[in-house]
Amino acid sequence: MLTLDFHPTGRHFLQIPGPSPVPDRILRAMSLPTIDHRGPEFALLGKRVLAGMQRIFQTKHPVVIYPASGTGAWEAALANTLSPGDAVLMYETGHFASLWNRMATRLGLQTEFLGLPGVEGWRRGVQADLIEKRLREDSQHRIKAVCVVHNETSTGATSDIKAVRKAIDAAKHPALLMVDSISGLASAEYRHDEWGVDVCVSGSQKGLMLPPGISFNALSPKALEVSKNAKLPKSFWAWDEMVEMNKTGYFPYTPNTNLLYGLAEACDMLLEEQQGGLDTVFARHQRWAEGVRAAVRAWGLEIQCADPSVYSPVLTGVVMPDGVDADKVRQLIYERFDLSLGTGLGKVKGRMFRIGHLGDCNDLTLVAALGGCEMGLKLSGVKLAGSGVQAAMDHFASHASAVPLKKAA
Amino acid sequence: MLTLDFHPTGRHFLQIPGPSPVPDRILRAMSLPTIDHRGPEFALLGKRVLAGMQRIFQTKHPVVIYPASGTGAWEAALANTLSPGDAVLMYETGHFASLWNRMATRLGLQTEFLGLPGVEGWRRGVQADLIEKRLREDSQHRIKAVCVVHNETSTGATSDIKAVRKAIDAAKHPALLMVDSISGLASAEYRHDEWGVDVCVSGSQKGLMLPPGISFNALSPKALEVSKNAKLPKSFWAWDEMVEMNKTGYFPYTPNTNLLYGLAEACDMLLEEQQGGLDTVFARHQRWAEGVRAAVRAWGLEIQCADPSVYSPVLTGVVMPDGVDADKVRQLIYERFDLSLGTGLGKVKGRMFRIGHLGDCNDLTLVAALGGCEMGLKLSGVKLAGSGVQAAMDHFASHASAVPLKKAA
Amino acid sequence: MLTLDFHPTGRHFLQIPGPSPVPDRILRAMSLPTIDHRGPEFALLGKRVLAGMQRIFQTKHPVVIYPASGTGAWEAALANTLSPGDAVLMYETGHFASLWNRMATRLGLQTEFLGLPGVEGWRRGVQADLIEKRLREDSQHRIKAVCVVHNETSTGATSDIKAVRKAIDAAKHPALLMVDSISGLASAEYRHDEWGVDVCVSGSQKGLMLPPGISFNALSPKALEVSKNAKLPKSFWAWDEMVEMNKTGYFPYTPNTNLLYGLAEACDMLLEEQQGGLDTVFARHQRWAEGVRAAVRAWGLEIQCADPSVYSPVLTGVVMPDGVDADKVRQLIYERFDLSLGTGLGKVKGRMFRIGHLGDCNDLTLVAALGGCEMGLKLSGVKLAGSGVQAAMDHFASHASAVPLKKAA
Amino acid sequence: MLTLDFHPTGRHFLQIPGPSPVPDRILRAMSLPTIDHRGPEFALLGKRVLAGMQRIFQTKHPVVIYPASGTGAWEAALANTLSPGDAVLMYETGHFASLWNRMATRLGLQTEFLGLPGVEGWRRGVQADLIEKRLREDSQHRIKAVCVVHNETSTGATSDIKAVRKAIDAAKHPALLMVDSISGLASAEYRHDEWGVDVCVSGSQKGLMLPPGISFNALSPKALEVSKNAKLPKSFWAWDEMVEMNKTGYFPYTPNTNLLYGLAEACDMLLEEQQGGLDTVFARHQRWAEGVRAAVRAWGLEIQCADPSVYSPVLTGVVMPDGVDADKVRQLIYERFDLSLGTGLGKVKGRMFRIGHLGDCNDLTLVAALGGCEMGLKLSGVKLAGSGVQAAMDHFASHASAVPLKKAA
Repeated sequence: MLTLDFHPTGRHFLQIPGPSPVPDRILRAMSLPTIDHRGPEFALLGKRVLAGMQRIFQTKHPVVIYPASGTGAWEAALANTLSPGDAVLMYETGHFASLWNRMATRLGLQTEFLGLPGVEGWRRGVQADLIEKRLREDSQHRIKAVCVVHNETSTGATSDIKAVRKAIDAAKHPALLMVDSISGLASAEYRHDEWGVDVCVSGSQKGLMLPPGISFNALSPKALEVSKNAKLPKSFWAWDEMVEMNKTGYFPYTPNTNLLYGLAEACDMLLEEQQGGLDTVFARHQRWAEGVRAAVRAWGLEIQCADPSVYSPVLTGVVMPDGVDADKVRQLIYERFDLSLGTGLGKVKGRMFRIGHLGDCNDLTLVAALGGCEMGLKLSGVKLAGSGVQAAMDHFASHASAVPLKKAA
Repeated sequence: MLTLDFHPTGRHFLQIPGPSPVPDRILRAMSLPTIDHRGPEFALLGKRVLAGMQRIFQTKHPVVIYPASGTGAWEAALANTLSPGDAVLMYETGHFASLWNRMATRLGLQTEFLGLPGVEGWRRGVQADLIEKRLREDSQHRIKAVCVVHNETSTGATSDIKAVRKAIDAAKHPALLMVDSISGLASAEYRHDEWGVDVCVSGSQKGLMLPPGISFNALSPKALEVSKNAKLPKSFWAWDEMVEMNKTGYFPYTPNTNLLYGLAEACDMLLEEQQGGLDTVFARHQRWAEGVRAAVRAWGLEIQCADPSVYSPVLTGVVMPDGVDADKVRQLIYERFDLSLGTGLGKVKGRMFRIGHLGDCNDLTLVAALGGCEMGLKLSGVKLAGSGVQAAMDHFASHASAVPLKKAA
Repeated sequence: MLTLDFHPTGRHFLQIPGPSPVPDRILRAMSLPTIDHRGPEFALLGKRVLAGMQRIFQTKHPVVIYPASGTGAWEAALANTLSPGDAVLMYETGHFASLWNRMATRLGLQTEFLGLPGVEGWRRGVQADLIEKRLREDSQHRIKAVCVVHNETSTGATSDIKAVRKAIDAAKHPALLMVDSISGLASAEYRHDEWGVDVCVSGSQKGLMLPPGISFNALSPKALEVSKNAKLPKSFWAWDEMVEMNKTGYFPYTPNTNLLYGLAEACDMLLEEQQGGLDTVFARHQRWAEGVRAAVRAWGLEIQCADPSVYSPVLTGVVMPDGVDADKVRQLIYERFDLSLGTGLGKVKGRMFRIGHLGDCNDLTLVAALGGCEMGLKLSGVKLAGSGVQAAMDHFASHASAVPLKKAA
Repeated sequence: MLTLDFHPTGRHFLQIPGPSPVPDRILRAMSLPTIDHRGPEFALLGKRVLAGMQRIFQTKHPVVIYPASGTGAWEAALANTLSPGDAVLMYETGHFASLWNRMATRLGLQTEFLGLPGVEGWRRGVQADLIEKRLREDSQHRIKAVCVVHNETSTGATSDIKAVRKAIDAAKHPALLMVDSISGLASAEYRHDEWGVDVCVSGSQKGLMLPPGISFNALSPKALEVSKNAKLPKSFWAWDEMVEMNKTGYFPYTPNTNLLYGLAEACDMLLEEQQGGLDTVFARHQRWAEGVRAAVRAWGLEIQCADPSVYSPVLTGVVMPDGVDADKVRQLIYERFDLSLGTGLGKVKGRMFRIGHLGDCNDLTLVAALGGCEMGLKLSGVKLAGSGVQAAMDHFASHASAVPLKKAA
């Protein structure tokens, strides 16, 4: 029997910005027996998750569900809309934007990687004016798509997608707007149709609270139209057969049935009307994020995201004082307090760590996580201005949740 | 499908002094398919759990496993050793001692309920000298058994069982020593043979980290001998057929197979040699208890147990200032922070609440629980002298665990 | 990690007359986190299972749920209604009737064990006329209770409980009617109020499809009244505090919460209106039983129950030809075909084996079980007249189920 | 809570040629909490499954594990080794060979689809002589790869991979040998290195007994070398970063952690030495297949595979008499007996159905499945020559398993 037993007692605190902790309800749903994906039962499941995901993306147009992890859905977005050598404008918000850019290059696209210089761009969201300016220069409309990360998992900054849409429209440019909301969806507000996004890429292991292994493309009619003439080779990722066959609740090739069970359960949990649905989900992530940032400020440490207007509701990057190796702090916290934190990635490796505050959490989960950070920082010799745990508790105690527990009858 | 959905998001913190949180490993083990309890496989399971429980009770003599919750094992201890009208000396340490006393009376025994006056006895462990004195007076040896609670779940005081043994011996009295260690076993040190206990009663839902539904009698040769002539009617609880049939790994009537799967897993977890076995288990409960008491002291609140030499490693009773209803504080904490605390019972109803720090916990679980208490106390208007969470974190940070997490290879 | 790995591949076929196979839905329900049995959520669970069990017993009067296996509920029925030395008339239908009789004797009751001579009584249900005759002789009403097994698990004969009620009434005798329906409830028709039963004893691991560990007493107002003056010592089993406290959904001592989760799920499954509720449950057990008996007849073997009017819908006893050791046949079948069958008990040890056809089964489960029996019988050298599997398939193919699978939309 | 409740009682029999029934051990393993795929624990898991899969493919060279279903691994095999416009020789064994051929075309490859005319090729395995002949004609070595399906899931015929290797070598042709063993691996014998395969494609939901969602490429050094110059765009599927990063046990992008838990468990089950490892696995599939074919013959029906030397150990295609719609038979069996069978695909749609006999089965599972088929065929009006169930039972009874159940101590 499988044992991965690093944990002498109690439950590990998984406070990385994804995978987020998977609720027992979802693990239980995933343990239903696998069924015939060509049998009569499956159609009900298929229709249910496809409809659920439309509500979560807030779109009336097709959502494609891939039996593959999120990186695959990045590739799908590009392969279905672009042709070899096409120019793509990608915006550098951090490490994941860089990886998407790198993928586009590997696939034979001509990418232009726009952004603020140095680490500066890694501390803010998208600068829509830069995009507008660049698109205006592209009078021949060589640029076929603008790619932006909605919630940059490596930094804890969100990007104003509406502003990008406005920039594209202001430039009267026909480029598609493609958005990565892998770590944003179902935690940070996202409105596919209203915001005018053409392709949105997402994944299962963040706000949807599933294990990794499912990913998504939410489409616009324009993206579907463009896809008919896109020339990048594709088969597994091809939208056409998917969208067609999904009308019946089935998939053109074997879907990952047991993760779809989990997805059906996740949709139920997130959309639950008595709990207030997605608005409540968004509100509780904001609440947690504010509590965590209160803690970081009380410690006297810097938050990676330098623009308060785009603080991420999903994660917070905590910058270490000079001379402190963030990964050594993380390791101490892991080994001593059974708490996983996110590492600094790419340009900020070793300079910061990331606290995930998403998915199946509550106030006390975050008090615990901040407690682990505070003890670990002190043990690592970092001088703290004050108690972050105290600041977070003050925040949580003075702000009631939107949805309290039920009371006894 | 069953839903008991009081919890909008995240995991409930169950910090009552039992049932304690059941580890996933145990829930998974309990989900093995039920087998024929007369088939060849079962004998292996039976022998395994019987041997495991001997190691946990630290006895070489028989342990009887009942497919019944702990209250049943209380009755079993009395019914197997006593006859109608027998005199029993019971010691009042708190609510559970009182309930056991009440049961003995219902069963037709003449109980004498010894203890300090008023609430005083509920703040300390057993006073062995009182027992010795009483036994010396009983020159005709009318008293057939002395019953003591090892870890009084209602107060958070332990009792010195060795001292009671010494008292009985000093009085040269033949009474049996019967001990309730329902909430002590596998959390607080307990040594059945070495301490000279005749019958020890325990249950599954505390240190053993199982759901409720299994209970135990650990026996001494003297208890077995005495049982041959005990006249209280008994059949389900009768030791004779159990002890005989257990030799083959089977049970005289249907055992609760799936909880035995969980028990086998619990024994593996508790006795795991690389983790240090029971000594490590005891050490970590002491560590947690000290952290929690540091918090209570920092708040400026009183600990229910007034004798530091017998503080419970399992739970801590927190006394409210005059005029504060402990149950209202508990309710607020439950509804606002998704944290269950133990109520005050019997004589201390409404005066105190209890924090469980046992079983499948770790430092951060307790930081979270103390955070919930601290926020809830403040919101209830209780003036606190300082931050208990801070005090507990100081304790945990300055005392390394005996068994840290594994390091990466 | 627990392994009890006797099974190289595939799923074991557990076709004993209980424990019956536990459905995944129930195992999943049992894996919900244990909650505080004094907290606000628990009351909902408690009320739900208490109401569900009333519907399953078909009674408007209290049902007591014990956190103990079925043997305990036998003891509870006796201890709550009788006083030391009371006379009890027990009827011998087989091994389990004998064990209940033995228990009554151990508890100090004067039992009279009525029945047909030799093995004859083990091949039929209760003979109500013998009971009536005996009660008429008891003009002084020394007999306080009549105890009958509804579905004798050791033989596969049911007893006509209405006839016993009629016999008692005809004799104008005030004795209580106590029934063991441990293996009958939720498989064979049982109507507590309509049939005029005073105490019905049942358990979890048969028709209720749970693991063992919960048991029941369904009461009549008369039984409750009588219990007030019954003198057998009792505390754990005492109805009074249970019935009182259950009104609020709570229990006087720790219930076995996780099995109650399973019980709630079982009630949902059994009472499901779209499926037809209990009537459908009873019908499908009759259907399976008929298929299995068709097989036994086709083999040319004898059915243990000699009276077709009381064939059990739950199990069928298959009598071996002279000279064949039924347990050797069972062992071969177990080791070769991964199928558990029930052993012959008591007077018929080695003479017969028992096929369970209850709970979470379907037609193909039984085709498989009968296939295993047929192959095993042949390999054991038993001459068979014809193919039992064929006969059962003929039966199943020519009789459609009451509730077919859903069709695709 | 998710319900897909088509099944009134008992367990559905999933006897399609994949997904195969997922053992409880694997479902339990999959329910372990998701961990940080960049944390120290993960490396142990990664190394373990990578090593396990090498043993299952019987290779010393890298195995790539994709967090995607099997169709993706087809694409990966092509995308890593070929350039736009490359010629590929694909052999038509049935529907899945046709789908792979279609994918290759979509990806911009020039495929040649070799095979016997009409349905004839769908009743046999590969004809290696045709391949050799074609390769000899290709004196300029325009053909870059030969693609063959090892176990054609749509027909129940295997292909002799060694013969194809021999044919390629005999033609002195440098084309890569690429094999789809999606439904063959871990059921039918497969020896990657010994057979000289360059790329083998497989998936999780067949012999590996997992839910769908993981797929594999097993590589040869030659394939790795060729991949360096292959020009089809690729990123998600690219071997280079995978193979490099897998050396440390990690993956370049998020793996599907919970399915990897299941995979680790599956490797343990399949490679278990006391059970005889893969040889026993292969032997039991042969045993089941022979039993099923004995049944089909007894019914007087035709087996889809016309060449006994390549009968599949995984599934058997059952051809319907003229005028019988195989899908109506399947539907009746599904709705009446809760048994899923595989539909006829492509050229044989409606002409045949497929019985899966793979993975977590045993003799009685197949007796049940054949019983369901036999009853359903009769109810559909198909005249049967004799009892297939009987024939299968005769086979199973006269051939002992390689690994019997354990005996009691």
